[in-house]
Amino acid sequence: MSSSPAELLLSGGMDSATCLWWLRDQLPDVDVHAVSIDYRQRHRVEIDYAAKLAARCGAHSHQTLQLDLSLLGGNPLTDPTVQVPAATDRQQAATVVPFRNLLFVSAAAAYAETHDIADIYIAPVRDDYEAYRDCRREFYDALETTLQLGGSIDRAVHLHTPFVDKWKSEVITLGLQLAVPYELTHTCYAGRRPACGQCDACVERLRAFKANHVDDPLAYDNNGPSREGERVGV
Amino acid sequence: MSSSPAELLLSGGMDSATCLWWLRDQLPDVDVHAVSIDYRQRHRVEIDYAAKLAARCGAHSHQTLQLDLSLLGGNPLTDPTVQVPAATDRQQAATVVPFRNLLFVSAAAAYAETHDIADIYIAPVRDDYEAYRDCRREFYDALETTLQLGGSIDRAVHLHTPFVDKWKSEVITLGLQLAVPYELTHTCYAGRRPACGQCDACVERLRAFKANHVDDPLAYDNNGPSREGERVGV
Repeated sequence: MSSSPAELLLSGGMDSATCLWWLRDQLPDVDVHAVSIDYRQRHRVEIDYAAKLAARCGAHSHQTLQLDLSLLGGNPLTDPTVQVPAATDRQQAATVVPFRNLLFVSAAAAYAETHDIADIYIAPVRDDYEAYRDCRREFYDALETTLQLGGSIDRAVHLHTPFVDKWKSEVITLGLQLAVPYELTHTCYAGRRPACGQCDACVERLRAFKANHVDDPLAYDNNGPSREGERVGV
Repeated sequence: MSSSPAELLLSGGMDSATCLWWLRDQLPDVDVHAVSIDYRQRHRVEIDYAAKLAARCGAHSHQTLQLDLSLLGGNPLTDPTVQVPAATDRQQAATVVPFRNLLFVSAAAAYAETHDIADIYIAPVRDDYEAYRDCRREFYDALETTLQLGGSIDRAVHLHTPFVDKWKSEVITLGLQLAVPYELTHTCYAGRRPACGQCDACVERLRAFKANHVDDPLAYDNNGPSREGERVGV
């Protein structure tokens, strides 16, 4: 008997990439449908990297779903008229897209029902807990109940968050063991390749590599990675 | 002190149109933000009518959010290669778009947070209960909890479903009292003006008017309204 397929929300960043390799390691017989969301994010180059990662890992498929959140306005991740803050600005809350993960999981759940998938994976990490309420397990518990009540058929839908209690640096430790090709991941909120090294996302990435005493294989632009990663503790 | 604004998911159909007039009647001091969703539905002419309704009722604003569900495929409401079934085909379940209301409310909640709105209205009716699990109050209760846990700020978000226990015919009774301009609503799943009179949505509409002993002010095409409405009881 073949195993039921699973679906993974694959942003193209380090955490979901690691989750993809972790799934291949933990559930080698399971077909993984990788799904990315194009929400008109400034850094939507990440979707190209999600596609490369899915292909490299041997995922069953990679599909991009369209959610145009740019009409909500006012957020630097989706509004080209607003600048992405540097990590030194201490404005991470400003990069919150309201209910982003709710929207992503809702779209993923619709895809899952269409493809007869009961297990959905998403990879929030412990570092996200404070700034992003939609990265907390109590939120996913409520959402899992909502999915079970709102699907077209009465069945158990499982919403898995395997890394929710792990720090990003621990996820990278795991990923290094699994040989995740981190050079194919994208992190920079400004959407730059080479990466800016200055935004919150870049700074957190660099900090996680530093905690593992490993060099980030990614290229950074001429200004170099922010020194922020050296003085801000996890 | 001015009242807090409210948001209404306004599809352009009869139920949400009635809800708009009901809000104006019940909460005359509240600014109502009407929000429609363009999910590439075949009948997206309904959005044009939603805009007319919002203007006619004096809503504070009308905004259309984009959710491209066509990539999910296989559903006659979003896939132009699949035909909309006639009501006589007894295939209403085939017109279910997976997690449609979850996606709509999620987008509405993101809009609400951006506009500092704590009260969101949506107008499922009792007739929807059997075929659509995402039209049941237990689903909205779970979703309300999810919204309260997943918003960027810790606050009470209320998800109101004022018509969830009313039959569509009762909603129309209310709307006729409130002088809702039903000629500006759109119902036909096939997206036709004049309406097809044959699809599930048209048949239910005609049945609701018939139960009120009132003629539907809408034009129907040459084949005329289906006689289905006369023999299928509520």
